[in-house]
Amino acid sequence: MADKIVKTEFTGGMRFKSNFDDGHHIIIDTAENDGGSNSGPRPKQLMLSALAGCTGIDIISLLNKMRVEFSNFSIDTEANLSADHPRIYTEVKVIYRISVKPADREKVEKAVNLSKEKYCGVSAMFDKFANMSFEIIYS
Amino acid sequence: MADKIVKTEFTGGMRFKSNFDDGHHIIIDTAENDGGSNSGPRPKQLMLSALAGCTGIDIISLLNKMRVEFSNFSIDTEANLSADHPRIYTEVKVIYRISVKPADREKVEKAVNLSKEKYCGVSAMFDKFANMSFEIIYS
Repeated sequence: MADKIVKTEFTGGMRFKSNFDDGHHIIIDTAENDGGSNSGPRPKQLMLSALAGCTGIDIISLLNKMRVEFSNFSIDTEANLSADHPRIYTEVKVIYRISVKPADREKVEKAVNLSKEKYCGVSAMFDKFANMSFEIIYS
Repeated sequence: MADKIVKTEFTGGMRFKSNFDDGHHIIIDTAENDGGSNSGPRPKQLMLSALAGCTGIDIISLLNKMRVEFSNFSIDTEANLSADHPRIYTEVKVIYRISVKPADREKVEKAVNLSKEKYCGVSAMFDKFANMSFEIIYS
């Protein structure tokens, strides 16, 4: 029995529906000019969403444990693709945007480092194929 | 300017909303027993969805070009995680399930190989961190 199983079914056109064991599903599709109908996001972008969600959940969990109050938290994931096919992500930048008291900035940096080094499996997987960089922007 | 940008915002609890430049969004969350509210799938499962969607779209596109009629097409992605943290996928199996005329099975195999070797960027990224295997089950 595998640790994680996702079942994805073709639903016509270029559309697929992924069914997760937590009861959720998502639709994946291509753009109209690639023969699809844009009824859901593209697969490669989902990878960046997985990366942001993974490290984001770590950060929230760690900041809550450290009793750091924060607001306006978002994560931009920016990636460049290889010129050669199959096109993979070669450079990936994770930009954390967050508001905290200046005295808590060190704790945010600690949380970002712990996510990167210890907790975030998606980040560790990305690290095997892309040059990763991380930035924190305080607002 | 990066090739791909995904913006992900924290929306309370352990929830995040990823906004894609194609106009779509998805919710990511954790399970109740991890402090979340299970309002969306987990990040790591999204990686498997991205893999299935990527290779699935290749297969559809190639079968359409080869004028192969098919039905009941689905893709199971099964993965095992490392014991050590951060936990990454170490073994990933992609199982294609499809109905075609027996005479067209060779074309399905060709499409699967072309996706793996030439087209699917997500598969190529997975290949950098996991032992990948592929199986076709005809129904």
